[in-house]
Amino acid sequence: MNEDLKIVALGGGHGLYASLTALRRVTSQLTAVVTVADDGGSSGRLRRELGVLPPGDLRMALAALCGDDEWGRTWSEVVQHRFRSEGDLHGHAVGNLLIVALWERLGDTVAGLDWVGRLLGAHGRVLPMASVPLDIAAEVELDGQVSTVRGQVACALTPGRVRAISLVPEDPPACPEAVQAVLDADWVVFGPGSWFTSVLPHLKVPELAEALHSTRARRLVALNLAPQAGETDGFSPQKHLEVLRQHAPALEIDVVLADTGVADDQEELDKAAAELGGRLVMASVADEDGSPRHDAQRLASVLDEIFREKR
Amino acid sequence: MNEDLKIVALGGGHGLYASLTALRRVTSQLTAVVTVADDGGSSGRLRRELGVLPPGDLRMALAALCGDDEWGRTWSEVVQHRFRSEGDLHGHAVGNLLIVALWERLGDTVAGLDWVGRLLGAHGRVLPMASVPLDIAAEVELDGQVSTVRGQVACALTPGRVRAISLVPEDPPACPEAVQAVLDADWVVFGPGSWFTSVLPHLKVPELAEALHSTRARRLVALNLAPQAGETDGFSPQKHLEVLRQHAPALEIDVVLADTGVADDQEELDKAAAELGGRLVMASVADEDGSPRHDAQRLASVLDEIFREKR
Repeated sequence: MNEDLKIVALGGGHGLYASLTALRRVTSQLTAVVTVADDGGSSGRLRRELGVLPPGDLRMALAALCGDDEWGRTWSEVVQHRFRSEGDLHGHAVGNLLIVALWERLGDTVAGLDWVGRLLGAHGRVLPMASVPLDIAAEVELDGQVSTVRGQVACALTPGRVRAISLVPEDPPACPEAVQAVLDADWVVFGPGSWFTSVLPHLKVPELAEALHSTRARRLVALNLAPQAGETDGFSPQKHLEVLRQHAPALEIDVVLADTGVADDQEELDKAAAELGGRLVMASVADEDGSPRHDAQRLASVLDEIFREKR
Repeated sequence: MNEDLKIVALGGGHGLYASLTALRRVTSQLTAVVTVADDGGSSGRLRRELGVLPPGDLRMALAALCGDDEWGRTWSEVVQHRFRSEGDLHGHAVGNLLIVALWERLGDTVAGLDWVGRLLGAHGRVLPMASVPLDIAAEVELDGQVSTVRGQVACALTPGRVRAISLVPEDPPACPEAVQAVLDADWVVFGPGSWFTSVLPHLKVPELAEALHSTRARRLVALNLAPQAGETDGFSPQKHLEVLRQHAPALEIDVVLADTGVADDQEELDKAAAELGGRLVMASVADEDGSPRHDAQRLASVLDEIFREKR
């Protein structure tokens, strides 16, 4: 555990949950900057019904940071609990409702999230990447035809191949605290996660993208353990890096971290990392059971080592 | 503040909120035993959709006991917050959803309420009077005809005059912790509150009624400041006591507390109190603004004095 190292983790959903579960073991100064473009499930319903930011990815990030004691674990379970019924509440996650209630009472997005963080005894802070709800628009290719698909759910499920994403609105206000956290960071970590809908959107929020380019922090990309059906079907690890470069051509990456099991062509991956200005680190970071999930302890050890080398 | 005095407050809704707001100033050993027969609003929907105890009266009692600091006040506000929308969540109180989630996760009604109590920094404990959801059935007289009305909302809104209530099911299991609290108490306080739907139901839960009769605790009845439209329209204070006696003929009351403003016939009220075995205490406990609400500080002072005299 490094008390001084300021780390910002960018992402959303299960990928961010995995990186936070590892990073909380590495530093006590951790900030998650989370996508706010979800339009499905409980989050999608809340955003449509109450006009709020979709809270689901924020909730999951907070749960990943919950305290280790009975208090933290219990409230984390409650926050993650979903109602199951034949009625109106079916599918709603309790933490989503709690976050929205705090937003409505306090009238302040960041303060509301900080209160849930305090409730959970969270080891770190969770911030939205933008101050307004966003939609993702994807340029999708199918049978030689290019079309635009709008909405995170639609992008994730499209039968076509996603080529690029943009945001609606195009120029959303960034969350100022998130911009500041990026500027103050020692390391910024991209991924793992749904590449087009959780990892790349941050680069399309102008003020946040500017901070990600200008920060003195080092930048690390944690590659996924497997392509994601729909969104990145058939994408090689190097293809992920190409897409990142295409969305932020001037962004320099210091380290690309890949699991030893996923790189079928290490030479190509080395080259792709070099094109971003970085070096490739290969390590065994996957769960031993063979599932495409990161092992928190392995990932934490490797990241800790990388962060120490570069200081 | 008396550190040793064990007090149990019986009731539900706004009446119980008022007594708890006063009693928390009098003792640090306070237990609320709350009706679980609500079938309206957010509570009614939750009970029908998820098959749980109606949480609303429990939530309100917990909020009345919340900590005095920023933490307690903020979480109390969140717990009391209601969603307003054109959609499915409209009208749901956040604390109701939180309580139900804890019940679903922990599988233990009392443990779930204790967790919300800890969240709020509650000055006391809140327990349900029974372990299963109840319905109130009222015997109602209208134009000389007697009929039965079922459901708390229907009873409260009936155009007829309520003569007596019973519970469905008739023999519900009491909450064991509530029974124990009554047996261990120094004082048990009935009311104020909706007479038929919040104050009398406790006397119809067999094990709880038995404890209320056999406890060595002294018993105090706090009368309402005004009759309640529908339920007790036109009821004099002494009529309230008569109805109590009719529902629990063997129950001895030590003190009847009435506001100086409501007793138009003090002699009659004295007599009604004496018939219950108790003495009448008249005091100014209403809000100065003339509304039919108790003033927490006045009520606390009067109760504190009564409790001290009788020790």
